[in-house]
Amino acid sequence: MNVSIINIGDELLIGQVVNTNASSMSRQLIAAGMDVREVVTIADNGEAIRSTLDRCLTHSDVVLLTGGLGPTKDDITKNTLCEYFNSELVENAEALANVKRLFEEKGYPLTEVNRHQAWVPRCCTVVNNILGTAPCMWFEIAETHQVVVSMPGVPFEMNNLMESEVVPRLRQYFHTDFILNKNILVQGIGESFLSDRIEQWELSLPSNIRLAYLPEAGMVKLRLTARGSDKNILQEQINQAVETLYPLIDQYIAGEDLENLAALVAQQMTANRYTLATAESCTGGTLAARLTALPGASIYFKGGIVAYSNAVKESLLGVSHATLEAHGAVSEETVRQMAEGARHRLGTDYALATSGIAGPTGGTADKPVGTVWIAAASPKRTMTICKHFGNDRLRTIDRTTNEAYSMLIKLMREH
Amino acid sequence: MNVSIINIGDELLIGQVVNTNASSMSRQLIAAGMDVREVVTIADNGEAIRSTLDRCLTHSDVVLLTGGLGPTKDDITKNTLCEYFNSELVENAEALANVKRLFEEKGYPLTEVNRHQAWVPRCCTVVNNILGTAPCMWFEIAETHQVVVSMPGVPFEMNNLMESEVVPRLRQYFHTDFILNKNILVQGIGESFLSDRIEQWELSLPSNIRLAYLPEAGMVKLRLTARGSDKNILQEQINQAVETLYPLIDQYIAGEDLENLAALVAQQMTANRYTLATAESCTGGTLAARLTALPGASIYFKGGIVAYSNAVKESLLGVSHATLEAHGAVSEETVRQMAEGARHRLGTDYALATSGIAGPTGGTADKPVGTVWIAAASPKRTMTICKHFGNDRLRTIDRTTNEAYSMLIKLMREH
Repeated sequence: MNVSIINIGDELLIGQVVNTNASSMSRQLIAAGMDVREVVTIADNGEAIRSTLDRCLTHSDVVLLTGGLGPTKDDITKNTLCEYFNSELVENAEALANVKRLFEEKGYPLTEVNRHQAWVPRCCTVVNNILGTAPCMWFEIAETHQVVVSMPGVPFEMNNLMESEVVPRLRQYFHTDFILNKNILVQGIGESFLSDRIEQWELSLPSNIRLAYLPEAGMVKLRLTARGSDKNILQEQINQAVETLYPLIDQYIAGEDLENLAALVAQQMTANRYTLATAESCTGGTLAARLTALPGASIYFKGGIVAYSNAVKESLLGVSHATLEAHGAVSEETVRQMAEGARHRLGTDYALATSGIAGPTGGTADKPVGTVWIAAASPKRTMTICKHFGNDRLRTIDRTTNEAYSMLIKLMREH
Repeated sequence: MNVSIINIGDELLIGQVVNTNASSMSRQLIAAGMDVREVVTIADNGEAIRSTLDRCLTHSDVVLLTGGLGPTKDDITKNTLCEYFNSELVENAEALANVKRLFEEKGYPLTEVNRHQAWVPRCCTVVNNILGTAPCMWFEIAETHQVVVSMPGVPFEMNNLMESEVVPRLRQYFHTDFILNKNILVQGIGESFLSDRIEQWELSLPSNIRLAYLPEAGMVKLRLTARGSDKNILQEQINQAVETLYPLIDQYIAGEDLENLAALVAQQMTANRYTLATAESCTGGTLAARLTALPGASIYFKGGIVAYSNAVKESLLGVSHATLEAHGAVSEETVRQMAEGARHRLGTDYALATSGIAGPTGGTADKPVGTVWIAAASPKRTMTICKHFGNDRLRTIDRTTNEAYSMLIKLMREH
């Protein structure tokens, strides 16, 4: 059983908005044992919607559409679907009650434009969207046992609908294979060397297990995907595969079932009851923000200082004025004092510090844009490193953050 | 002239990686006056690649592919394209020199797997990818004057190729319309009320100008897109449209040509030569990170404190122990002292502070998960607000951040 996703919206197609809906929908479908055949992004254009729907229905059991359900003129999905299914728009009592409730809660008057949100094609089943005014519409094509669902494009409305309504209804309507995914985080070995090392192992995997390499900043994620009718057998197969993988790359395996380096930091910190502080210049809060985005961060993360100006580096982190004068803010000496200052002043076991020139301006001949110093301090020692990450500001912030997490993971292993 | 984008990769289709390539490619194409017809995401699957390419070539002048060019077994794009164009793989001298250089720079030995990266279909033109080992391959279909380009899926390699090679070559190969985009940031009015107010204006726009509503956290972006052969006429039309829009919604227009609230904060801070500090608990560094992600932040942003623990709220921000005891960390009193403490200790004109329960745990009957206090302090006064953002941790962080920026923008207007 497979699903196609059609994300509708000019804002997606011109790249003004990153399409996060596609990935969150896919994750939910995959976890429920459904295959995603393709994801298509098209404009708010009736002809494009019709022809893409036609095509997706030739190869998919289910087509999920998002977007184009707002009250404004550029939103045409509802009218297009109404024509597509030869239906007519009628006011839906449940949808109208929902729209009224939402406006009452906000204390706004209900206008004609808003009231029109409650009109839906007569042939569909309305799935109530408690978080927004656009109803979710469920269409069944009886002859072919296919389903088309139209959802709003607002991410949190769509996610709530998928989780609480659409996926459970699809599970009920279709009967699907179980899917088990297993992630192994590998660090300190490049993708091609890794591939050489585990080639024979990969070839020996059962045919219902697929391996994917997912390279990310500072690491490679190996993902095993097993598919079959018996969940226990799949679990057994995955366990077996992981067990035979360890002897081949033991020293490079950083963890299992973790999404990224921040999650690995969180796991190691929490498991060892360590505490952490951050002192950030060029990363500007990103080191702290990625860690605190994960639930449970308050167990190990005590706090951080974003020391963007030299005055703040001195007053809040205790970096010496002489050091800043002699070596500058982007230097080994400064970043070392930042890390040790943060560790000391926030009273933590570990601390991370960054100072660099993210650009696009501020570079010199000695220290070109992209020059970054990073320090990681433990109870035993302070490790420092200098990197040159080039001209892209956001990429420099991203790579500095991942490099700092990598250093911290290494330092924790020394303990 | 229009372009289709095919993003290839199991990791995209199962949602493990958000497809940011699509949006960054689209932005570059649109800015160069090209239309994006559709974006398709498919698996590392030969049949899917062939059939999607077939179809996209029925409606598009150019098809850009990303992904599936790594050295591992799951990467099959190159072989599939070689068959598709009835060609054969040959070693390319320029690509080999590039691979060798990259390995020498890193000090790694060149393996057979890596060397194979330099093999390409004989019929293509190699576009050198100086940032990675996978060559970019340019195919021309002479009879139909169509172009197919295959690029690596690693975002920074792809972005560099698009900017420095692919887009310029496409501009040379095709002759395209000019496109002008204009964004107006609207704040403090809902999408449907806005739509009611400007309906007549929208209907009166010239037929070559399109309006889109892009609602985002805390605001609505209005985007005008003009297309035509004469850049000066387009600019004139856009100016005219904007001029007639102002009288209709003057009090709600927050700025022009800004991507988000962080950019608006940056613009207002810089234009007025104000300075800013942040004191964050539940947003954990996000307030600072989004501002410092924008170039030039060091002009107005002095620094911030991520005060995740109560001890840090006391020691670094001067929140009184008695206040924390009496009212708790998530309270009007605490967040007010955090903002004023940050403003005072970092010596800035303005300061923002957040304290809340992002969840998923930590809520109480009095203060359920999602309860957030926000403060904005100016030289004149401190403004506070309490919000209830619900159970989604990342959404609460996001909405708190945008609400804080909104408060700061309001406070700056009082000056």
